[in-house]
Amino acid sequence: MKFDFIQPLLKENNTKIILLVIDGLGGTPLEWGGLTELETAVTPNLDELVASGLCGLHSPIGPGITPGSGPSHLALFGYDPRQYQVGRGVLAALGIDFDLKSQDVAARGNFCTVNERGEVTDRRAGRITTDKNEELCKSLEKIALPDIELHVKTVKEHRFLLVLRGEDLSGDISDTDPQDIGVKPIEPMPSSPAGIKSAALVSKFIEQAAQILQDHCPANMVLLRGFSQRPEWPLFDEVFGIKAGAIAAYPMYLGLAKLIGMKPFHSDNKIEDELDILRSQWKNYDFFYVHIKSTDSAGEDGDFDRKVRLIEEVDQNIPRIRELEPHVVIVTGDHSTPSVLKSHSWHPVPTILWARHCRPDRVERFGERDCITGGLGANFPAVDLLPLALANAFRLDKYGA
Amino acid sequence: MKFDFIQPLLKENNTKIILLVIDGLGGTPLEWGGLTELETAVTPNLDELVASGLCGLHSPIGPGITPGSGPSHLALFGYDPRQYQVGRGVLAALGIDFDLKSQDVAARGNFCTVNERGEVTDRRAGRITTDKNEELCKSLEKIALPDIELHVKTVKEHRFLLVLRGEDLSGDISDTDPQDIGVKPIEPMPSSPAGIKSAALVSKFIEQAAQILQDHCPANMVLLRGFSQRPEWPLFDEVFGIKAGAIAAYPMYLGLAKLIGMKPFHSDNKIEDELDILRSQWKNYDFFYVHIKSTDSAGEDGDFDRKVRLIEEVDQNIPRIRELEPHVVIVTGDHSTPSVLKSHSWHPVPTILWARHCRPDRVERFGERDCITGGLGANFPAVDLLPLALANAFRLDKYGA
Repeated sequence: MKFDFIQPLLKENNTKIILLVIDGLGGTPLEWGGLTELETAVTPNLDELVASGLCGLHSPIGPGITPGSGPSHLALFGYDPRQYQVGRGVLAALGIDFDLKSQDVAARGNFCTVNERGEVTDRRAGRITTDKNEELCKSLEKIALPDIELHVKTVKEHRFLLVLRGEDLSGDISDTDPQDIGVKPIEPMPSSPAGIKSAALVSKFIEQAAQILQDHCPANMVLLRGFSQRPEWPLFDEVFGIKAGAIAAYPMYLGLAKLIGMKPFHSDNKIEDELDILRSQWKNYDFFYVHIKSTDSAGEDGDFDRKVRLIEEVDQNIPRIRELEPHVVIVTGDHSTPSVLKSHSWHPVPTILWARHCRPDRVERFGERDCITGGLGANFPAVDLLPLALANAFRLDKYGA
Repeated sequence: MKFDFIQPLLKENNTKIILLVIDGLGGTPLEWGGLTELETAVTPNLDELVASGLCGLHSPIGPGITPGSGPSHLALFGYDPRQYQVGRGVLAALGIDFDLKSQDVAARGNFCTVNERGEVTDRRAGRITTDKNEELCKSLEKIALPDIELHVKTVKEHRFLLVLRGEDLSGDISDTDPQDIGVKPIEPMPSSPAGIKSAALVSKFIEQAAQILQDHCPANMVLLRGFSQRPEWPLFDEVFGIKAGAIAAYPMYLGLAKLIGMKPFHSDNKIEDELDILRSQWKNYDFFYVHIKSTDSAGEDGDFDRKVRLIEEVDQNIPRIRELEPHVVIVTGDHSTPSVLKSHSWHPVPTILWARHCRPDRVERFGERDCITGGLGANFPAVDLLPLALANAFRLDKYGA
């Protein structure tokens, strides 16, 4: 839905909405005839929400499209992910609270290991410690580029942020990360005429970085991707008329939320800690985005049983959410991460929308196959959730006479 | 679907289509675990249509959007309600058969009650009689405005129509109705430069109207809204190749139908009377829109049981429709009006599409939760119904070779 369509309909209310994102929630069976992670999990509290609410499966981007975390979250926040695109560099910057200026070019960096032929042998440099990362970033930040201010900042383990600050820069530069081992890093190339100057600067940076890092094996090279500049988007509270808080443990999710003006709250990677923050901030916001990362990590690790256990852990915490008496609760994932695939996937994502006046469907259990016959539909666009949440929170006026 | 896509596909036939709109049909349960109005109603004849037809739930405008009656009907008539927008003033004019010229500016008026401080105490002036309304309109029509022909016409009870006729007028004027009591009427403001002259004229009208009405308490003031000019739209019979008749008791619905060239037939507010007209006009039209208002009124009054009874009354009349042997019957609402909310709502609307060759689904009963698993889908766009009706009436040719 276009923002200029919904904005005139906004009306004030004191209702509260919770969007609980269980990252990578959707799954698939390990074998023919089996159950998915969610179907296997014992989830009495989520089932109770389903029985008194409505459910369905959302499609984050479109049929068959496997989303990254950025676009899939933007869809859940009501921003069309095909129109609002953000690079991973920008996300990394926002996630570590780096004050990105509008002309800056940011890239997500990995320390990696290359062999004597320059071929990548480990894209994550054995996941070096964050301390080591900090030491290396300080060295790299000393690299001098003509007319450019350079920032190299630690994110976590092997991950860092590169920012070029100067005149006439552009994020139109291709990734140097080959996303594979046994091959050399790729030379950065301009993807438009605007990127020619910037790509040349990045090339010089990489050259000097390689020299500085040569004795720091396994972290003896860098890979860069997601060159991008900070987009100027309409802010969430202006678009939807609700003041939003974001609670997450990982920088990227908080960074994304900040980009649209949500207030970020950093928590430990435990749902209990996140819900403590939710409770303490309850009076201060209309809308809360709560992000659970661990389920996606389990899926990415191919650990079906751990993902089941983590879903059950979320379930056990649902009463803590309900005792706050929110008016609208949405429980969903940003995308599916089937353990059997060890990666994000295109499969539609199980979703609960619970509210006092939501007209329940007949589904009584939270699972992928149960959700197919839910009232939200078997394959509805993820961007539809936010307007539905507003309607159920009585925050939208009638359209037309 | 764009009109220029469907028009080349139109083909003639002698098949007949009935669109029965049970206003505000959709509902919600009164309490957790309860049934909706439609699910409560005993509807053997509608159930028989469902069992041999297909069903689903339509979304009039989009996810979470509560529609007014104008846009929701336009969607059912196959006109994209976001593209084709009509003001309430124009609807009121057409509904009382007022011959609106293309330059006229029309507004929907309410007689209202204000206290000695000028604050609205009753937006409907105690619903004065239509006779009293006529007397007051005659007085107001004597107001003289420079270079302007003024028309003030009774609609019903407290409702009237104001029309300004003259040169260089525009409907770009804000409502004076504050939609609330305890506050003063709002001064009419131009919403674009084109509206400056017209807003000033309306302001003068209100000033004089207040003087004329001052001794006519409770009808001692006027509220105006929906300033608008008659839109020039493609006509229904040209767009869809079918000659259409509209049967309704309330002016607004007939007015809307006339706007797209349907022939209006005014009936009493009884389904029996409407079906008498349907029968008498059966040979003269290809498409009949039949509007049932009472169900919506019951919902707006919060009268669950009355809405149930009225749905049952419609059901009892379904055999009279079927004995005409229409080729396609659509039974739906223009929107939901849950009794528990006492207002229009965003909830999808139960729909039956019955036709000889419609490929039935497995649903056997007409109810919101039954319709979720129907062949039309749990949340299909209302504008899709008209093309589906044409197809089922064998009035559309193949697309492409």
